[in-house]
Amino acid sequence: MKIESVDLFYLALPHVRMIGDGSQDTLLVRIRSGRHEGWGECEASPLTSIASFVCPLSHSACRPVRDSVLGQRLDSPKDIARIGHLVRANSFDLLQAEHTISGIDVAMWDLLGRRVGKPVYQLLGDRKAHPKLAYASALFGETPQQTFGKVRQFVRQGFRAVKLGWGSFGRHGLRHDRAQVEAAREAAGPVCHLMIDAGTIWGADVTSARARLSFLKRARVTWLEEPFATHQHEAYLRLAKSRPRVPLAGGEGAHNAPMAMHMIDHAGLSYVQIDAGRVGGISAARQVVDHARRRRVQYVNHTFTSNLALSASLQPYAGVRAFDICEYPVELSDLAAGLTVGRIVPDADGRVTVPAGPGLGVEVNRRTVRRFLQRVVIKAGGRILYESPSI
Amino acid sequence: MKIESVDLFYLALPHVRMIGDGSQDTLLVRIRSGRHEGWGECEASPLTSIASFVCPLSHSACRPVRDSVLGQRLDSPKDIARIGHLVRANSFDLLQAEHTISGIDVAMWDLLGRRVGKPVYQLLGDRKAHPKLAYASALFGETPQQTFGKVRQFVRQGFRAVKLGWGSFGRHGLRHDRAQVEAAREAAGPVCHLMIDAGTIWGADVTSARARLSFLKRARVTWLEEPFATHQHEAYLRLAKSRPRVPLAGGEGAHNAPMAMHMIDHAGLSYVQIDAGRVGGISAARQVVDHARRRRVQYVNHTFTSNLALSASLQPYAGVRAFDICEYPVELSDLAAGLTVGRIVPDADGRVTVPAGPGLGVEVNRRTVRRFLQRVVIKAGGRILYESPSI
Repeated sequence: MKIESVDLFYLALPHVRMIGDGSQDTLLVRIRSGRHEGWGECEASPLTSIASFVCPLSHSACRPVRDSVLGQRLDSPKDIARIGHLVRANSFDLLQAEHTISGIDVAMWDLLGRRVGKPVYQLLGDRKAHPKLAYASALFGETPQQTFGKVRQFVRQGFRAVKLGWGSFGRHGLRHDRAQVEAAREAAGPVCHLMIDAGTIWGADVTSARARLSFLKRARVTWLEEPFATHQHEAYLRLAKSRPRVPLAGGEGAHNAPMAMHMIDHAGLSYVQIDAGRVGGISAARQVVDHARRRRVQYVNHTFTSNLALSASLQPYAGVRAFDICEYPVELSDLAAGLTVGRIVPDADGRVTVPAGPGLGVEVNRRTVRRFLQRVVIKAGGRILYESPSI
Repeated sequence: MKIESVDLFYLALPHVRMIGDGSQDTLLVRIRSGRHEGWGECEASPLTSIASFVCPLSHSACRPVRDSVLGQRLDSPKDIARIGHLVRANSFDLLQAEHTISGIDVAMWDLLGRRVGKPVYQLLGDRKAHPKLAYASALFGETPQQTFGKVRQFVRQGFRAVKLGWGSFGRHGLRHDRAQVEAAREAAGPVCHLMIDAGTIWGADVTSARARLSFLKRARVTWLEEPFATHQHEAYLRLAKSRPRVPLAGGEGAHNAPMAMHMIDHAGLSYVQIDAGRVGGISAARQVVDHARRRRVQYVNHTFTSNLALSASLQPYAGVRAFDICEYPVELSDLAAGLTVGRIVPDADGRVTVPAGPGLGVEVNRRTVRRFLQRVVIKAGGRILYESPSI
């Protein structure tokens, strides 16, 4: 069977706010082949990824992503790998292509799973999906009081792990950060896992990050996430070796598997966090899973958007029992919340299991697509290169 | 003074061919502040970089590049660094932004140099520009005979170093590659430097690359360039340690300074090749120069496009005497050749010196901009986000 169409849908809230909430827009990918279709999502800047899909040829290593996908044979996981290689070889000078292929790869796995009636993790060779302890993932409150209220609510909902990040953290000085973390631990109680996400706020400044270690340690955080920008391995490593020891997490910015593997090898991470919608899809994420196992670093999904993206990011490590934590976003926008028919929800024990249905096991809600669709037109050199498809 | 406008011009040949010639299109950047202007170029996929400049906000770490540049104060090199940090902090989830900031950074240096009447390398703190041995950089001929003819011509023109790459190399088997390299050496004569560029053809396949080492060694090549994809450090390192020893070059794919530094640290390179139009501009390139000095790896520019891009890529290491080789593209398209008024040419000794004029020391030919301008319109959500500016 050949890939007959690849449709990109740019969805966004009517008013996107200047906050760290990545669920305010999305680029949805639909792939059709014969009577089947598959869906995927690319993380971040839908318009830019659309441009990388349709742009005119620059030279033989800078081709539009479309040219390496449309018309390709898609019969097995090997074809997905082949198409991924093709995009990387044909578009390696097109930086955005790695984000774009991410959603396409996810949609290809979904399509293949639906065609053979199996969930993606089984196509990856795993027999069983193991439940993961879901951590409620949310933004910090503006004040410690607000943060306390948020965490208290998550615990009441049954979560046994909570992560807070971004917002004011790292922006108002040491005392504010300590008060935030202490409020979170107080609300969480002594048993609940607590993770803190600094959202790269310190760039490469180890001293600022190190100044927070003592109260993070006192609050017994499971990890400190993204103290630094993705590429700052040396800063990560220096912080990882600092006292008191606080485990570090990072990797969501990786846009290909080798980049994530370098981070595992050189940044002193205890947890590597991979977004299938950025790293090159489920295929690339799976390579990182395998590398993390070899290096005894714990693999965790990164997901702050829809349940479609959540399923995609869970599939690569669903079958690995030892990797037993997952990110579970709890403050979804209307767009992200409504994007799927039905929801993946934690069980009474606070655990999430990847859906049992074929492919990603989730259904896209076409009404939501219609409601949030952004009409886009791109013209260049007298030709219309892109118009939003109909759903 | 504030940055009053940033204009992006997408230029392309009427017919872009499926060859490894990166000079067939370009994204030209013009920045205006007061009565001064500066120019820069971004490498690869102009439409995608335009989209990253104008795209709607996705969230607080995925903003359009424009928002971190327009209206900013630009009075000193510190402001350039500050604006670069701002773009990276505000757009770190927007992958293409690193290519886009590259041309903007170059234009800011050009503008600043013009305002104070100094060449960029002096603003970087270097007193003197040292001449570099220019290697004629060209694509392989389709046959060894064609390659022989090309190299013979470059030597007659006075070049004392020649690099051949891409084309059929690595695509038609070992014997073909050997014949190509032997033809090149025969035409070059015994003294001329000869470099071979594999254009990432072997992906991460060390065995295929290793099979070429014996005839590369016999041909006394100065380096083998890009045997593998940019992120494949381990493959690079294994090849670098293989016998017979052939020095490796790579790094043109680096899209930020830390990425290039990791390659220096982990890939066993003898030469690191940096394109200012991709790595984040002259500022990021300069960081790589400093790191290369510390690690005793030789820094070389990567340039396959216009003389504007050539000057930009030379400035970061113009003042470093020990880094004495430069890439000099000799098969420019009409677009790239005509983009500047006047040309940077090698002296009688085959050496190139960065222009002495203020800024980049080259003038953009507005007639060429008009001739090759691609009219682009981007609309989203009922708004026109971009229309090609007038020159």
